[in-house]
Amino acid sequence: MYTSFYTDAKEVPKAEGNSKYNKIRYMIIDVDGTLTDGGIYYDENGNELKKFNTKDAAGFFTAKASGIFLMVITGRKCKATERRMKELQVDLLAQEVVDKVSFIKEYLIEHNIKKSELAYIGDDLNDYTAMQLAGFRACPSDSTEEIKQIVDYISPYKGGEGAVRDIICQLLKKRNQWESAYKSCYHID
Amino acid sequence: MYTSFYTDAKEVPKAEGNSKYNKIRYMIIDVDGTLTDGGIYYDENGNELKKFNTKDAAGFFTAKASGIFLMVITGRKCKATERRMKELQVDLLAQEVVDKVSFIKEYLIEHNIKKSELAYIGDDLNDYTAMQLAGFRACPSDSTEEIKQIVDYISPYKGGEGAVRDIICQLLKKRNQWESAYKSCYHID
Amino acid sequence: MYTSFYTDAKEVPKAEGNSKYNKIRYMIIDVDGTLTDGGIYYDENGNELKKFNTKDAAGFFTAKASGIFLMVITGRKCKATERRMKELQVDLLAQEVVDKVSFIKEYLIEHNIKKSELAYIGDDLNDYTAMQLAGFRACPSDSTEEIKQIVDYISPYKGGEGAVRDIICQLLKKRNQWESAYKSCYHID
Amino acid sequence: MYTSFYTDAKEVPKAEGNSKYNKIRYMIIDVDGTLTDGGIYYDENGNELKKFNTKDAAGFFTAKASGIFLMVITGRKCKATERRMKELQVDLLAQEVVDKVSFIKEYLIEHNIKKSELAYIGDDLNDYTAMQLAGFRACPSDSTEEIKQIVDYISPYKGGEGAVRDIICQLLKKRNQWESAYKSCYHID
Repeated sequence: MYTSFYTDAKEVPKAEGNSKYNKIRYMIIDVDGTLTDGGIYYDENGNELKKFNTKDAAGFFTAKASGIFLMVITGRKCKATERRMKELQVDLLAQEVVDKVSFIKEYLIEHNIKKSELAYIGDDLNDYTAMQLAGFRACPSDSTEEIKQIVDYISPYKGGEGAVRDIICQLLKKRNQWESAYKSCYHID
Repeated sequence: MYTSFYTDAKEVPKAEGNSKYNKIRYMIIDVDGTLTDGGIYYDENGNELKKFNTKDAAGFFTAKASGIFLMVITGRKCKATERRMKELQVDLLAQEVVDKVSFIKEYLIEHNIKKSELAYIGDDLNDYTAMQLAGFRACPSDSTEEIKQIVDYISPYKGGEGAVRDIICQLLKKRNQWESAYKSCYHID
Repeated sequence: MYTSFYTDAKEVPKAEGNSKYNKIRYMIIDVDGTLTDGGIYYDENGNELKKFNTKDAAGFFTAKASGIFLMVITGRKCKATERRMKELQVDLLAQEVVDKVSFIKEYLIEHNIKKSELAYIGDDLNDYTAMQLAGFRACPSDSTEEIKQIVDYISPYKGGEGAVRDIICQLLKKRNQWESAYKSCYHID
Repeated sequence: MYTSFYTDAKEVPKAEGNSKYNKIRYMIIDVDGTLTDGGIYYDENGNELKKFNTKDAAGFFTAKASGIFLMVITGRKCKATERRMKELQVDLLAQEVVDKVSFIKEYLIEHNIKKSELAYIGDDLNDYTAMQLAGFRACPSDSTEEIKQIVDYISPYKGGEGAVRDIICQLLKKRNQWESAYKSCYHID
């Protein structure tokens, strides 16, 4: 049902401090409309293309470096997604998840994760109920109205144009981890 | 000449109430420029791609849940369209329709559908006359001037960026069906 | 060197009236940046894609209906272009034209065409000198500065977003042909 | 490790004059986010597409004509990039460069190039340290905040929408080479 790229991932370290930002140890990221502009490209041979954005990569890498376990959960299935998520080194990729709510609830119980430790980035109605399971919620600027009303942060960037990177960047700044994270990831200084 | 995905579709229930919005039981949706930004991607091997937008899906699903029979009629033929329409569970897909007007007129007569029961979403001149057969007309923000002058509603969204979803959302809100429809479709509450 | 799709094309009728708009009988249209947004998509197998816009089709059809002979001349060669131009029923497609100026000069002499009878739509420096051979010049809004300085009309639309259709529409309006042309092409009224 | 398309390239002529613009003899150009909008298109068969923009071509050609040696250095590897760079006649293409800083440092030493002779166009954190090796730095308008803070010039154009062409155009104007370069490249006058 899902692909775990990093079963040997090291124990996720607890974030220090007590703010709602510092408590986050897990982050769920939606695909269509969040990591893309919602575009679904079909050709005449049953092939599907998806357009990701290299700008989001820095978000994934710095989040991991800051001790956040990254989970990508999507209702669709697409090899393009699988390939890109491998590149971005997500800890868990779950595709064809018909019922995101049940999937996440079970995962939280199984791994003893509190709501306050979970962040969720999504853009549309199929994320609505699942997002309520997370203590911190954020979305791209072009998300649907109903989602915008339940999030803690609306990125000024659109889905597929760097919204995920921006959200993670803002979060890590609140945790005072951004600068050290990006400098560590990109060997700066 | 056309593909009916759901020949076993249940009888479409009559909408209650007498406003022009409530009378709508059928909706025709154009493809190029309406469900897409008008982009036609060709490669060197005769392959054609089309870019749909996942944001429109919620429009299709909530319209169906609200008792609206969805028809996609296009003058072109493309397997990408066929695949996407199947996913979106449209009730009727008609491609390669050279004469949309005759096609629709015959359909209305055969199924005893009144003009006031038909809605039409289109964006360009090849929809112009056919749209006049519908009691409710709407278009994306980037439609051609001539179409904008004959519609009841111009979406603030462009074709391929969620215009169809917005139009259906606004329509269902007028019918007091939006909230119950999307909550039912996405298992919210 | 070039493909003539319509060797049996009927004699191009002389436009009536003496304004600079009415004199136009031939129109040259550039491809990259004019009929597209300049995007060149390459994949890993040597395949090239191009994205055209269905909005431009009405421009091609109404121009032809108004007695304008359409020529597409490009320095590149791409099967995608060939396929799309066939669909748009251009009268002449010339690809791999290294020296557009010589090509056009020869064509004008051979067919006894005056500068005042030629229109040219282009967007970039490789059209600069060739455009000077035309009596009427126009370009998309996102054309290069040098081209904008030598044209009669700058469309408010970008290349690949309907600039060609808009330019032809404005031209035909000046000739009092737009309304009859689009109504004839799309069987309106 | 890298592809040199033009091992027989003529000696790069020293630029005259002493301004920081005139000293530039080498230019490094990033790919993703700089020559593209950051979009990475994946399909279901492991194929990757990239969208370049024909508008950038004039930048490459005029820079070369003005005696600037063009180097494209990227951390990724993609045949689409290889094909496009061949077309744009870059002097050196280096892909899969994990450590851009070491690569460039070695190159500068080996070819006895001073920092003041090197320009760098990049958009994101993976260019950050490498860009510091260059005497002149520029970036597209949609570059990441950290890059914008260390550049000499921020183009008003986005990556993949002509930013590189604009940057080169502005640079050559400062060197009084733009007009003669584009007229020479495009046989104008």
